[in-house]
Amino acid sequence: MRLTKTFIKTLRDAPKDETATNGALLTRAGYIHKELAGVYDYLPLGLKVIENIKSIIREELNALGCEEVSMAALQNPEPWEATGRWLSEKIDIWFKTEVSSGGELGLAPTHEEPMVNMLKTYISSYKDLPLYVYQFQNKFRNELRAKSGILRGREFLMKDLYSFHTSEEDLDRFYAEVEKAYGRIFARLGIGDCTYEAFASGGIFSKYSHEYQTFLPVGEDTVYYNNDRSVVLNKEVYNDEVLADLGASKEKFEETTAAEVGNIFKLKFKYSEPLGLKYIDESNEQKTVYMGCYGLGVSRVMGVIAEKFADDKGLVWPDTIAPYKYYLVGIGEKGTDAAEKFYKTRENEVLYDDRDKRPGEKFADAELMGIPLRVVISDKTLADDEAEITERKTGKSWRVKIDELMQKF
Amino acid sequence: MRLTKTFIKTLRDAPKDETATNGALLTRAGYIHKELAGVYDYLPLGLKVIENIKSIIREELNALGCEEVSMAALQNPEPWEATGRWLSEKIDIWFKTEVSSGGELGLAPTHEEPMVNMLKTYISSYKDLPLYVYQFQNKFRNELRAKSGILRGREFLMKDLYSFHTSEEDLDRFYAEVEKAYGRIFARLGIGDCTYEAFASGGIFSKYSHEYQTFLPVGEDTVYYNNDRSVVLNKEVYNDEVLADLGASKEKFEETTAAEVGNIFKLKFKYSEPLGLKYIDESNEQKTVYMGCYGLGVSRVMGVIAEKFADDKGLVWPDTIAPYKYYLVGIGEKGTDAAEKFYKTRENEVLYDDRDKRPGEKFADAELMGIPLRVVISDKTLADDEAEITERKTGKSWRVKIDELMQKF
Repeated sequence: MRLTKTFIKTLRDAPKDETATNGALLTRAGYIHKELAGVYDYLPLGLKVIENIKSIIREELNALGCEEVSMAALQNPEPWEATGRWLSEKIDIWFKTEVSSGGELGLAPTHEEPMVNMLKTYISSYKDLPLYVYQFQNKFRNELRAKSGILRGREFLMKDLYSFHTSEEDLDRFYAEVEKAYGRIFARLGIGDCTYEAFASGGIFSKYSHEYQTFLPVGEDTVYYNNDRSVVLNKEVYNDEVLADLGASKEKFEETTAAEVGNIFKLKFKYSEPLGLKYIDESNEQKTVYMGCYGLGVSRVMGVIAEKFADDKGLVWPDTIAPYKYYLVGIGEKGTDAAEKFYKTRENEVLYDDRDKRPGEKFADAELMGIPLRVVISDKTLADDEAEITERKTGKSWRVKIDELMQKF
Repeated sequence: MRLTKTFIKTLRDAPKDETATNGALLTRAGYIHKELAGVYDYLPLGLKVIENIKSIIREELNALGCEEVSMAALQNPEPWEATGRWLSEKIDIWFKTEVSSGGELGLAPTHEEPMVNMLKTYISSYKDLPLYVYQFQNKFRNELRAKSGILRGREFLMKDLYSFHTSEEDLDRFYAEVEKAYGRIFARLGIGDCTYEAFASGGIFSKYSHEYQTFLPVGEDTVYYNNDRSVVLNKEVYNDEVLADLGASKEKFEETTAAEVGNIFKLKFKYSEPLGLKYIDESNEQKTVYMGCYGLGVSRVMGVIAEKFADDKGLVWPDTIAPYKYYLVGIGEKGTDAAEKFYKTRENEVLYDDRDKRPGEKFADAELMGIPLRVVISDKTLADDEAEITERKTGKSWRVKIDELMQKF
């Protein structure tokens, strides 16, 4: 993309009410636009990051045999009444609205109830199981406060996967597969070495659930971790009983803050029982379906990555999700000609700063936007038949031959 | 995809309250699931059709230099109050909701106001114009009645494009480009020969707007067309004055019903004026930005296509948007082996009916689902080293050599 052909530009200032680093930086770098607290628009660069994150998740889930759907946001109360979750005592962040033909609807804060309800049409026999269904979908949560940029949204993009099984063993098997897939996903997103699977409270049906917590100073959660970080616990389960259960002792744990980027639950019969999701087994008996659910906050993880890697110059995207691989600057007449040539070989990978601006301004925008590699072709580098590459993450620069640049990169 | 590996199955019956053909057929064929009137989930096959439609639109718009974004559904009242459209006298299909920190929010039924408002950050000079911004986004409309399947949704997917210009001439130029792009889009969607650009009322700033009307018995609009269909008019502008304007006489027109799949407006200053979207021109004067908007109902057009081409056996998808190109059936031991082989060469294009069912049942499902080409490989066809292809649209069958099938198709 040529910068002269996109409406995006970097901004000197973020909105005054934008107190979160991720929100301020993503706004200044032209990735997002704030509508109201916890509600953002995704501009071309931001949408590309979101799509790159989705692609990684989709690849890993499809490899497990998961099927993608897209469910509605508007919710009939009935299935939620059946589980008790229509009540604000159970879910206190509903957005509800009146439908003009009469009655109330809700905006889905999550999708267990409609998913189970829908699958009653498709599951009747043990032959229909197991099955795994996921979506990327905007959730709505009526948060009292939302001051963390895209880390806590009133409207936010989530990947929610639900699995359905004939037995607890099969749920356990798939749950373990998802754990591995989540490990691969966070590694590919570039936060594998600071994101931990943490024990959290499990609810009625399971002793524990698991959260994926990225250690982050501005994270809203408090977690405890042992020396080698092999055991990480949400504060809510950091007590003697749980520690004993895990064979650990309290004095060895340290406290830190973290952002929850995912959570996985063995729900078992929690929703399938009240909603009547049943199947006929091999011996013709009616049984209740075992269920698991697996969330991953897509827009939140984008905010976490923005927040985690940012430095005093701006954003720093991992290669795997950066909106463009290269930020291209041509300097001088010959340098600009060569830059044009390079741009045309890979328009989709290059953000080409063809604006009539000083190199210094362009370099500052390249850094603010956080594009992994800056490519500068100038009359000076061309004198050696070379271009200069600078890595955003490390600030390291090196030269490559122009021919090599055109072919290899 | 193997049918044994997807949760999708065809259903004998649609829900009793599903009176629309498109809704009933798409439900029975496993493409959608009804949540409530006008609110549907998109199952794996349905989501693929939606994504295929989006790809065609995206390609055509990107070729015009349009940039994709994704804006929020939750709306602050302010920009809508500035144009008067927060009032139910102006927009009577708002869904509104209370936010827990105080105040009211709306669910966007369209996006002119937030788009103009957002672009005030990005447009300041004539150098920033023209620009074209679009999104694929779920709109919410609190319809009193929604009985037309996915033809009229309370929650539905729309492509909305907005253009911004320094002059009326430039708006006219781009408007004409979008007209051509819409022609290409509807042609690629397979409804080019039954979709017409119709005159409709223009509002305050333009004499006319244009609608894209697909002639359809269950369409909710009434349109009038002349002999060679070179002039098509929405009923609202079918009067002597407009006909005189277009140099046509009333007696030559016929009436029919149609479904509006798109609409385009020269908005000029309608929203930019009250919202204060201005720029500095070459002579340093402040001017108001000219604006156009261009809608296309993505889920509606899916319903229109389903409705338009369906026959007594089920759906009939155009090749360009079908979820799969081939519906594969193997019969007999050798036939099944060869089918497996063919499937493995193109898993993404083939819906492989590997279920333990009679061929007749499989053929009926192939027809209900509307996959363009049915490929049958049986011990009998293999005796001639052949497979049998049947085209869904025409019912015509022919034989191809197995080698040719494996390579060419």
